[in-house]
Amino acid sequence: MELASVLLTLLIVFVLAMLASVIFERFGIPGLVGEIIIGVLLANIVIGDQSIASMLGILMPNDGEWSTTANILNFLGEVGIMFLLFTVGLETRVKELLKIGKVAFIVALLGVILPLVLGFIYVYFFYDPENLMSSLFLGAAMVATSVGITARVIKDMKLMNARESKIIIGAAVIDDVLGMIVLAIVLGIQKSSEKGGGEIDVMSIVTTIIIAFAFVIIMLLLAGKVAPYLTEKISDYIEKRRAENPNRKRVNVSIFAIAVVICFFFAIVAEEISLASIIGAFFAGMLFSERAEEWKLNENFETVNKLILSFFFVCVGLRVSVGDLKSYVILATIIVLVLAIIGKYVGCGLGSRLGDKTMSFKSMNIIGIGMIPRGEVGIVVATLGLTYVGYQFTNLYTIIILMSVITTIIAPIMLKTAFKKKYGDEIPDRS
Amino acid sequence: MELASVLLTLLIVFVLAMLASVIFERFGIPGLVGEIIIGVLLANIVIGDQSIASMLGILMPNDGEWSTTANILNFLGEVGIMFLLFTVGLETRVKELLKIGKVAFIVALLGVILPLVLGFIYVYFFYDPENLMSSLFLGAAMVATSVGITARVIKDMKLMNARESKIIIGAAVIDDVLGMIVLAIVLGIQKSSEKGGGEIDVMSIVTTIIIAFAFVIIMLLLAGKVAPYLTEKISDYIEKRRAENPNRKRVNVSIFAIAVVICFFFAIVAEEISLASIIGAFFAGMLFSERAEEWKLNENFETVNKLILSFFFVCVGLRVSVGDLKSYVILATIIVLVLAIIGKYVGCGLGSRLGDKTMSFKSMNIIGIGMIPRGEVGIVVATLGLTYVGYQFTNLYTIIILMSVITTIIAPIMLKTAFKKKYGDEIPDRS
Repeated sequence: MELASVLLTLLIVFVLAMLASVIFERFGIPGLVGEIIIGVLLANIVIGDQSIASMLGILMPNDGEWSTTANILNFLGEVGIMFLLFTVGLETRVKELLKIGKVAFIVALLGVILPLVLGFIYVYFFYDPENLMSSLFLGAAMVATSVGITARVIKDMKLMNARESKIIIGAAVIDDVLGMIVLAIVLGIQKSSEKGGGEIDVMSIVTTIIIAFAFVIIMLLLAGKVAPYLTEKISDYIEKRRAENPNRKRVNVSIFAIAVVICFFFAIVAEEISLASIIGAFFAGMLFSERAEEWKLNENFETVNKLILSFFFVCVGLRVSVGDLKSYVILATIIVLVLAIIGKYVGCGLGSRLGDKTMSFKSMNIIGIGMIPRGEVGIVVATLGLTYVGYQFTNLYTIIILMSVITTIIAPIMLKTAFKKKYGDEIPDRS
Repeated sequence: MELASVLLTLLIVFVLAMLASVIFERFGIPGLVGEIIIGVLLANIVIGDQSIASMLGILMPNDGEWSTTANILNFLGEVGIMFLLFTVGLETRVKELLKIGKVAFIVALLGVILPLVLGFIYVYFFYDPENLMSSLFLGAAMVATSVGITARVIKDMKLMNARESKIIIGAAVIDDVLGMIVLAIVLGIQKSSEKGGGEIDVMSIVTTIIIAFAFVIIMLLLAGKVAPYLTEKISDYIEKRRAENPNRKRVNVSIFAIAVVICFFFAIVAEEISLASIIGAFFAGMLFSERAEEWKLNENFETVNKLILSFFFVCVGLRVSVGDLKSYVILATIIVLVLAIIGKYVGCGLGSRLGDKTMSFKSMNIIGIGMIPRGEVGIVVATLGLTYVGYQFTNLYTIIILMSVITTIIAPIMLKTAFKKKYGDEIPDRS
């Protein structure tokens, strides 16, 4: 390994991603869209007879050797997305999940079921008939809601206290947990079918689903019962030590290192029991949710992620092959996009009315739209699909990336309009 | 690459290093010693017919392929040591270098020349006759002073304001710069001899020395003249933006990303002109020294380094082969150790007297001892020697690691005694 050449490649990728992200954010589009596009450009712009990605040595073929640089880039990105899911977990408290109440739960549940079913039906009966795994991965990718993007619009509009906002945020959090369960089940089915040499063994599927459920329930119990007790003990101990020796300063950082160890640990456990590392990282984050702020964990993880998270999205883009965008793929993208929007809009809108009969149409409209953006989570599922299903998933991968990116771009714009329809001029304009 | 297996290996290495570091710190020994020992143990404990390092897939042979995991471990460690040198640079202000004055400068200069000459003479005339490159790398490794270790003892004893303390810290900083220049020259000679197929081409050496000097002078000019002006402009701009929009919070982190880009950039430049990446990183840090605190750069770099720096020292240990510790190597280690101690003790002690005729013997004693620990910088030079000289350097590598580790362990103990001899009971005991 030539250190300087690896550093140079990472530097080029990092600077390009940073510039794209800043430019996109300027126009109100989430930075990750810019980072994905950088990846797409690097992989698809050909100079002479090589793509730029190939010159930089960061090609990531599904079948074939990766260079050391490609491995390092991918590894850093994978750690980044694990850390991101960990910080999402940090903001998910079991106690609050239980308090959020009926409406948010029904919104989340219908918002999970409808897109999942629509996506599955489309692929299984129309796009790639009888390909169970592809259908399941696409369905799972339709499920995710990106809390971050919606939350940011609500924050920008200073509507954190609107009832719809609370329902959306609450439902998005429950949606995360449900989404992880769906993903865990899909991965379980995938891995048990791998073991059976492609044949689906019902017993083995049932076993892995039970394992997945057991993992989620154990993690929720740990996060709800054990972790708050333990973290309080640790917090008291630190207080005591600090009182004894006020000059002691290294405590925060040590907790950060321990949090990273626990994040890695559960990521590995999740991988070992046929789930995905991000699922483990997410629930590991929940373990620290009670003390996240006090221990500055969010801050520390975000510091690291400022350096490595963009690599994940660049890698996502690197795997998109523009040459594969044949007309039938474009058509399928449009259909998936429409189903993704309808699934969340109808599912969550109706869910809110089912949960509360007095819900007005304008409120249903806000909630339905607020749940549309798929953001990073849909993209992660697409990446897993590509890893596990392999070559057959290439087109669906591109379709999911496009669907995630487009919902992420349009939802904030639609959400602003929907809020304005209900609250009119009460909204402080911030543009 | 199997993500889970890479993660598991890194997790094991990280936890072992963390435990070793904490235990050693408890006994007042710098944590890096524990981390190096973990590396030595992993590489040298054989179970069945394999070392633990080989089971974990992190062997780093000088000649031969490295696994993906070994590459990632090494890469993270290399970035860690670059970041460490960057933070040393952050604390080195050109303005203060010029103010530190005559005494510190003479202390540093003699403390560089004497160990360099002693080390060179020993290897060139006795240990490995006429091996120019090995002699030069050993000499360069004798030069370094580890500011961190000495500074920590002084801080622990609350003697920051003692005159000897100021001279030691000042001299250690100048020593860093001089050490980088020595290393730059040695690397220049090495690379020009590589180009000449092992033959030493005087013209080419002169050229590379000129390039090395030019780089250092340009970086010092940038750090002294251009950077303070630019960073003030940027700081003013940030102030203005913040005043316009008090909710804006993302500024610090963005500056951190830019600092990392600049660190990488100069590391690559330094590598490209035949210097080492750490030299570039060190001077890149100096560029930010005026605003390091305001922009929380130290904090951010340290957050990342809590995760990756230990990998550098584990990698250092991984390359030590206990089997090579034949009696002549042990003898040579003792000789190098004695020369390293005498070189700094006599050089710096005499230097302080030369700079100030009124310097008492007790003060000379403190200053001479304070400059003894080699710490991480000596180790970095050893690693470079192994990379560039190759197989012939294996024993000298082990010798330098042992010398660095032992001086790092004994100097703090000796320094405490020396301070007590001069200041007696004035020292607040903190054990």
